[in-house]
Amino acid sequence: MRGTMIHGPEDVRSETIPDPAIIEPTDAIIETSATCVCGSDLWYYRGINTFEQPWAIGHEYVGVVREVGSEVTTVKPGQFVIGSFFASDNTCPHCLAGYQSGCAQAVPVTGCQSEAIRIPLADGTLVPTPDTPSAEMLPDLLTLSDVMGTGWYAARAAGVRPGHTTVVVGDGAVGLSAVLAAKELGAERIIAMSRHPQRQAVAQEFGATDIVTERGDEAVERVKELTGGIGADSIAECVGTDEAMSTALGAARQGGGVGFVGVPHGVKLSAGKLFANHVRLQGGGAPVRDYLPDLISRVYSGDFHPGRVFDLKVPLADVADAYRAMDDRTAIKAFLTP
Amino acid sequence: MRGTMIHGPEDVRSETIPDPAIIEPTDAIIETSATCVCGSDLWYYRGINTFEQPWAIGHEYVGVVREVGSEVTTVKPGQFVIGSFFASDNTCPHCLAGYQSGCAQAVPVTGCQSEAIRIPLADGTLVPTPDTPSAEMLPDLLTLSDVMGTGWYAARAAGVRPGHTTVVVGDGAVGLSAVLAAKELGAERIIAMSRHPQRQAVAQEFGATDIVTERGDEAVERVKELTGGIGADSIAECVGTDEAMSTALGAARQGGGVGFVGVPHGVKLSAGKLFANHVRLQGGGAPVRDYLPDLISRVYSGDFHPGRVFDLKVPLADVADAYRAMDDRTAIKAFLTP
Repeated sequence: MRGTMIHGPEDVRSETIPDPAIIEPTDAIIETSATCVCGSDLWYYRGINTFEQPWAIGHEYVGVVREVGSEVTTVKPGQFVIGSFFASDNTCPHCLAGYQSGCAQAVPVTGCQSEAIRIPLADGTLVPTPDTPSAEMLPDLLTLSDVMGTGWYAARAAGVRPGHTTVVVGDGAVGLSAVLAAKELGAERIIAMSRHPQRQAVAQEFGATDIVTERGDEAVERVKELTGGIGADSIAECVGTDEAMSTALGAARQGGGVGFVGVPHGVKLSAGKLFANHVRLQGGGAPVRDYLPDLISRVYSGDFHPGRVFDLKVPLADVADAYRAMDDRTAIKAFLTP
Repeated sequence: MRGTMIHGPEDVRSETIPDPAIIEPTDAIIETSATCVCGSDLWYYRGINTFEQPWAIGHEYVGVVREVGSEVTTVKPGQFVIGSFFASDNTCPHCLAGYQSGCAQAVPVTGCQSEAIRIPLADGTLVPTPDTPSAEMLPDLLTLSDVMGTGWYAARAAGVRPGHTTVVVGDGAVGLSAVLAAKELGAERIIAMSRHPQRQAVAQEFGATDIVTERGDEAVERVKELTGGIGADSIAECVGTDEAMSTALGAARQGGGVGFVGVPHGVKLSAGKLFANHVRLQGGGAPVRDYLPDLISRVYSGDFHPGRVFDLKVPLADVADAYRAMDDRTAIKAFLTP
């Protein structure tokens, strides 16, 4: 089958790789209906995260179940399913508490930029949709596998509540999804930080009421100005750099919440600064599995279009073009069709 | 009048100092009914926090209003009052959000180990009790000015809920108060970390169900053992050192909460570690003012005895003995009578 291998920095190739097979009795094999490139894939593409062997990359997927292992009971061949980028049993205490990405048995799902995928712990990981969705719904549904779920967690971890003033740091697809999450969760004012007109437009379509183009301390100052000197109630940090975290913490009001979902790369936190402004901080890999039923309903309601983050559609065979476009920021996020 | 001046490390003196007077029209002067020594006073006594001039120390107090400034409307001479160690206006957006210790006008209250005290922003800071309490109630009420309020905030910031397994790191008076707070907030299992029999006894009286005597990584291991490998739902960090914070973060389950109230001294936080276990972290100077009405009612109910943290009673004139006893940990907390 056709799959995507990453060989090194800036070296992603569409290749013929072995078809996946059931290994554990809890596995399922799905035929990929759509997949995409994640901002976190770029950490490898850019050589920031290193590795020794070429590997099958990609962790966002929707598809149709082809085959299930002997112990799988909740999904069956022919069903359209969505799953998280972390396989989880959905029965351990961490899963039951809503942190499936911290499941005692958690396994990262990988090799998803391929025509078929092996999904471990299929019963705990995959959620079937009410029916086989139309092609038009695929972009919206695909985002639930990671990017929209991650934006959702950023907003939830930040404690977004109706009436809030929420800041989103980062205008990548996750940041834009966090804007949409904040809107859905009732934030009244949503300040998006972006200096790219194309991304600003999506942020505004998703509910951003204000755009801040400044960065660092100037961005913090701007948020303070916009909030009468008080700061924001909730902040979603969707980058993962030290500057982004510092901006997020600086923008918070006393007792404000910061949710951080950018995988930290060299992020330092000052306990003294957190102490001084009573910030509530929570981060981590999003427990996407917990949100899937709710987010699937929202997509099926017809008024929720997170798929708007995809501004480039590329055949799987041309996956290298997708990485290039996201790397040079000419595309927000690339949708891949097998 | 008699007051307490700190001149340098291990040099606290009871002296005659000027009587306080109204300076701002929002001030009140109170006659001290009881005061005490705080663990944070010891940072100065031990030379860890330095200063240039001798100053009037002490920030925990209950007393009777002697005089009020021309703009004070909610308290009047003769009333018994309790206030926070931070004066606050209780009207700014931070106060209204429940973070009076981050009030836009916040002023630290000091000079409280004295026969009389000037309280700035009296309307926002002081809360009258329903009547003039008996001498027996003074220890319980005095704790509400800081130590019990701080333990309460630690438990609240940690997110203690009914049924929780809660860990308290630190067996000082704040840690013990956090045990009591966790109990009042419905924690089912309370694991107190202490190796001092006298403090263990108070912790158990306050509701601790388990005592852990290990420290550092071993303490974390012990909590994991006690919780079937899962970790605690909520953790109150009541010390302020790097080791204590590391223990608190290590003891948390996926998505557990850590409330930290020990003023951070050299505490480093790893964003990567927080990310890995989804810990919810909140710290700061406790917004004691927010809790005073509730905590006063609890004391008046007759079943809530946070004053049990006082195990030494010393006349104000002998304040140096109180510091010595707390410094060498022969006393948990010293109650001072003017």
